[in-house]
Amino acid sequence: MARRSDVMDAIVNLAKRRGLVYPSSEIYGGLRASWDYGPLGVELKNNVKRQWWKSMVQGREDIVGLDSSVILAREVWEASGHVNAFVDPLTECQSCHKRFRADHLEEAFEEKHGRAPAALADITCPNCGVKGAFTQPRMFNGMLKTYLGPVEDESGLAYLRPETAQGIFINYLNVQQSARRKVPFGIGQIGKSFRNEITPGNFIFRTREFEQMEMEFFVRPGSDEEWHQYWINERYQWYLDLGITKDNLRLFEHPAEKLSHYSKRTVDVEYRFGFIGSEWGELEGVANRTDYDLTTHSKASGTDLSFFDQESGERFVPYVIEPAAGVDRCTLTFMMDAYAEDEAPNAKGKPEKRTVMRLDRRLAPVKVAVLPLSRNTDLSPKARDLAAQLRRNWNVEFDDASGIGRRYRRQDEIGTPFCVTVDFDTLEDDTVTIRERDTMSQERIAISQVEGFLAAQLVGC
Amino acid sequence: MARRSDVMDAIVNLAKRRGLVYPSSEIYGGLRASWDYGPLGVELKNNVKRQWWKSMVQGREDIVGLDSSVILAREVWEASGHVNAFVDPLTECQSCHKRFRADHLEEAFEEKHGRAPAALADITCPNCGVKGAFTQPRMFNGMLKTYLGPVEDESGLAYLRPETAQGIFINYLNVQQSARRKVPFGIGQIGKSFRNEITPGNFIFRTREFEQMEMEFFVRPGSDEEWHQYWINERYQWYLDLGITKDNLRLFEHPAEKLSHYSKRTVDVEYRFGFIGSEWGELEGVANRTDYDLTTHSKASGTDLSFFDQESGERFVPYVIEPAAGVDRCTLTFMMDAYAEDEAPNAKGKPEKRTVMRLDRRLAPVKVAVLPLSRNTDLSPKARDLAAQLRRNWNVEFDDASGIGRRYRRQDEIGTPFCVTVDFDTLEDDTVTIRERDTMSQERIAISQVEGFLAAQLVGC
Repeated sequence: MARRSDVMDAIVNLAKRRGLVYPSSEIYGGLRASWDYGPLGVELKNNVKRQWWKSMVQGREDIVGLDSSVILAREVWEASGHVNAFVDPLTECQSCHKRFRADHLEEAFEEKHGRAPAALADITCPNCGVKGAFTQPRMFNGMLKTYLGPVEDESGLAYLRPETAQGIFINYLNVQQSARRKVPFGIGQIGKSFRNEITPGNFIFRTREFEQMEMEFFVRPGSDEEWHQYWINERYQWYLDLGITKDNLRLFEHPAEKLSHYSKRTVDVEYRFGFIGSEWGELEGVANRTDYDLTTHSKASGTDLSFFDQESGERFVPYVIEPAAGVDRCTLTFMMDAYAEDEAPNAKGKPEKRTVMRLDRRLAPVKVAVLPLSRNTDLSPKARDLAAQLRRNWNVEFDDASGIGRRYRRQDEIGTPFCVTVDFDTLEDDTVTIRERDTMSQERIAISQVEGFLAAQLVGC
Repeated sequence: MARRSDVMDAIVNLAKRRGLVYPSSEIYGGLRASWDYGPLGVELKNNVKRQWWKSMVQGREDIVGLDSSVILAREVWEASGHVNAFVDPLTECQSCHKRFRADHLEEAFEEKHGRAPAALADITCPNCGVKGAFTQPRMFNGMLKTYLGPVEDESGLAYLRPETAQGIFINYLNVQQSARRKVPFGIGQIGKSFRNEITPGNFIFRTREFEQMEMEFFVRPGSDEEWHQYWINERYQWYLDLGITKDNLRLFEHPAEKLSHYSKRTVDVEYRFGFIGSEWGELEGVANRTDYDLTTHSKASGTDLSFFDQESGERFVPYVIEPAAGVDRCTLTFMMDAYAEDEAPNAKGKPEKRTVMRLDRRLAPVKVAVLPLSRNTDLSPKARDLAAQLRRNWNVEFDDASGIGRRYRRQDEIGTPFCVTVDFDTLEDDTVTIRERDTMSQERIAISQVEGFLAAQLVGC
């Protein structure tokens, strides 16, 4: 499949059909740009999160974890600048009444024409094709509001967090003290965030409800640029280590004039999603947030958030390096990049097209499928027992439908690394066939050795 | 500690001091009854969730997972009855202006006096002590609202889910078909829910934002009572298997006249939290929801949610058995039940009081602590290398502060099962001391055998 947009279409179709991702609230006609993860999707997504947590928190001496609330005190968002500055320019096409973010329209124009538009009036509506029908943009806050308590008024107003990062900054002092940490150290967190997106879309790439994996790394001012480069390299490498094709991954340096108000430098890790109008999409941003956040919260709360370094005798407000990734975007990326079509022999030995997700074994939602060759009264119980045994360690599927070739294909397209087949020889000699997903090679081993064989192949899963 | 309320106080103190649970938004004066999980808390909570997922989803052939959205289509909550029936009676003490749930006041009265109050006027305000100052209760919906889209009006009105269960019911058909399941089978889910509680409190027991572990088990009508009893037993046993003291655990049968509108029978698993006014608190509810949910959603959506059983040739709407547990309550329970005070020898060999959390090893936030005996230039690097090696498998702490006894106590009170001490003999013969938390027994083994020794002790972690 040469065209990336074809891969995206294939993934959306496969995701629905096989239980990776469903349109949310589908029996009620759906809720726009909202998705639910099915049995295989939740396993895949959990594996992505587990790999991030292992790599970014548990596997490191210098980083600890956190899980802060979605709803924080209102003062947090006033101090962070979100109440005033987390706004996007909203415009509406007066012809079709569809709403857009003006900055997105301008960026798409620039990508296509190689120059910025003189005004919104230059731009053709991507929905109805009418040119110059856009209203003057008005600013629109991206936070979702709710009301706590029995009366729906200003006193109970609260926001759903639009990023997990602020939950880390306001807990910085508690964590630093209770975990007895010295700068440099980091705090990592995985959790849901909510944004009132004007133009959600592109499957699970941009949704109003999404999950983030963010880590704030606190460093001495002056060492920030070096640490920033370190984390850009680390995060780029993380995707490669989990199997992403190098050609589909790139770093994008934010132009200085477009940096967020808190950032000294930001570099995105981008993936070649092949969206219409924009080939590359942001997978993760790695920002040097300076001392903006701790200084701001220190002033607003009256709490001293500076750090006294006993070795040097200096007191300073730490700078923050932030690698912030999206769980859903990562999950989409791993699915798209693993998607492949090749050939496998059919029942008559002739080559037939097969779809295979070449997921890294650590990410595969099902690690092993146990397949009795037929629904024979002796084979099935034996296969079931083996499945039950393997289930203590891994996520296992048991499938006794008809057609062994068809069942292999079903496992290939969801990326299952190993299939174990129990056949009539098994009843004689207690051996089974283990088939590997990518090479399709088959090996005959004793049932008693299956668990050990798989444990060696599935290290780190 | 005989009194349960003393244990609760000790846990709240320990949780803050050691980074298990902090008051949320504390630098801004806090947000009432809202809590953030610190470095140790997030590991403990993740371990609770992992054990539930292993036991209720991955470890079973007949259950699959799901991860549905917090914000679902509004029709879901209209059909489920939440818009109209998810209401609580709110009353206010006219003396101190504190608000209460009238039904909670009545239950507390009944528990204390052994009889129901004749009217609210009989009840003394738990806050200010004034009797009979309560207003007439008015009904109050427990769902938090938000608004999607650029205009805050009825068209964008949405609810934050008050339970994860409805996300399962509306995906029932997608899951059943894509995962090719036959009744009986179950769908499990872990995720955040939100309720506009009038009287949140008791630490992380009742909060507006909380996490649930719910499983909906779909069965043939007629087999529902048997399956219900099966799940009551299973869930009770789960807590015992993870170390909860039998005397602190009980089953509570909901009186028929107090059952929810959807329930045929509900049995709660309760824990002896020792709250003021109520010794026992709900840990988990196991309900026979009948065919209420699928029938309701089928009617409201116009989608046929019945199941055709090929073997019997029958078509029916499945009944649902629901074990619904709270992650935060479980986490609190495991901390409270593991909390103990005993004695350990001090530096001079005299017995001193020690605090120890006797957590099941699978739940302990830190599995191993690596402790160099002193900050000697040779000891620390060796200990650091060992910690880095063990970190590939488990959550590990490295601590080179002074005083080995004091460091053992620090690990004991957070429940770390094993401490590995690197001392001067290690430099000679490459052996280390491994100390076990509960027995405080010490064993000398080769550094090369530490990983294997721990792997055998930490099976299932």
